[in-house]
Amino acid sequence: MKRRQTAILLFDGVELLDFAGPFEVFSRTRLTPGVESRRTDDTAPFRVFTVARTAQITATGGVRILPDFRFDDHPAIDLLVVPGGFGTRPLLEDETMLDWIRDRAARVEQLTSVCTGALVLARAGLLQGRRATTHWGALDLLAAIDPTVTVERERRVVHDRVITSAGVAAGIDMALDIVERLHGRAVADETARYIEFQRR
Amino acid sequence: MKRRQTAILLFDGVELLDFAGPFEVFSRTRLTPGVESRRTDDTAPFRVFTVARTAQITATGGVRILPDFRFDDHPAIDLLVVPGGFGTRPLLEDETMLDWIRDRAARVEQLTSVCTGALVLARAGLLQGRRATTHWGALDLLAAIDPTVTVERERRVVHDRVITSAGVAAGIDMALDIVERLHGRAVADETARYIEFQRR
Repeated sequence: MKRRQTAILLFDGVELLDFAGPFEVFSRTRLTPGVESRRTDDTAPFRVFTVARTAQITATGGVRILPDFRFDDHPAIDLLVVPGGFGTRPLLEDETMLDWIRDRAARVEQLTSVCTGALVLARAGLLQGRRATTHWGALDLLAAIDPTVTVERERRVVHDRVITSAGVAAGIDMALDIVERLHGRAVADETARYIEFQRR
Repeated sequence: MKRRQTAILLFDGVELLDFAGPFEVFSRTRLTPGVESRRTDDTAPFRVFTVARTAQITATGGVRILPDFRFDDHPAIDLLVVPGGFGTRPLLEDETMLDWIRDRAARVEQLTSVCTGALVLARAGLLQGRRATTHWGALDLLAAIDPTVTVERERRVVHDRVITSAGVAAGIDMALDIVERLHGRAVADETARYIEFQRR
């Protein structure tokens, strides 16, 4: 089975659950239902890994994480998740980061963001003319960064080529939506049941 | 303000979201609503940190985390969270770990578990004669480990001196319940709104 190479971008100040929610969903999805199938990767349709510019990052609340890969040594990426957090603010002026994201965005099968990760995508020019959403506290900022974006204020997940999601826990819904698009409703619902998350 | 010292136990094979959900809730709770209050710890009622026996642990999916403290050097603990995951199974025979948990459990204000963390508490004798829950895939195992436990099969959070929760994402509900008990409904609901998690 071809496993989709799923990269989650990490950086200092990434919101912990923005990253951990989608990581949990993609890494625990199995095409075979039940508890036992989660003991191996045999029916895992995603291979999930983290990528960061630095060898160590600190998420909100002080959690220190060792990313799996660096910017220049990671495997090919099919699905890229850009999470949010207060740590996105310096990224808005960080040309190395914006260039890296633009470059990968041009080659991935699917680009996604959680929470204020959408601000970074907008600043990189990747949401031009598209519908998108972000954390409720950053909706106006998203519109200010790129006035061509149609900001969706009421939806948890917005799909307009790029998939953006609302704040923090909405990243779990986003990831489950992607599982459903790729592998069907039954697999997505069973994964939600495994992690005891109620989909909306 | 006295901040409750909130420790989350980490170990190899801890389920990522079991740990990250409660960490997110407790570390993002603020007594002052809104986005700006989350930029500092000024109105944060919890100080959250991780404790592990080893200097580095690997969660499910391969996420490598550097715990804040070790077993012999951590601050006093008011609130202890024992998460679950397949990594709990070796802990059931790990007397060093069981002794550490028993010792801390005797001194904390509140002992809690997420998911199969309840198996470890049961094995440590800390759920004797109590109502408790765990991940749906481990309900029978919980009953087998300690037949004096009344296993609650339908509830996401069970409070019988010890607070146990169902699988994975139920740890987010559990943490929000604790926020509500300690700081009131408005603070818990506002924290849920901040992380865009719908309470049940």
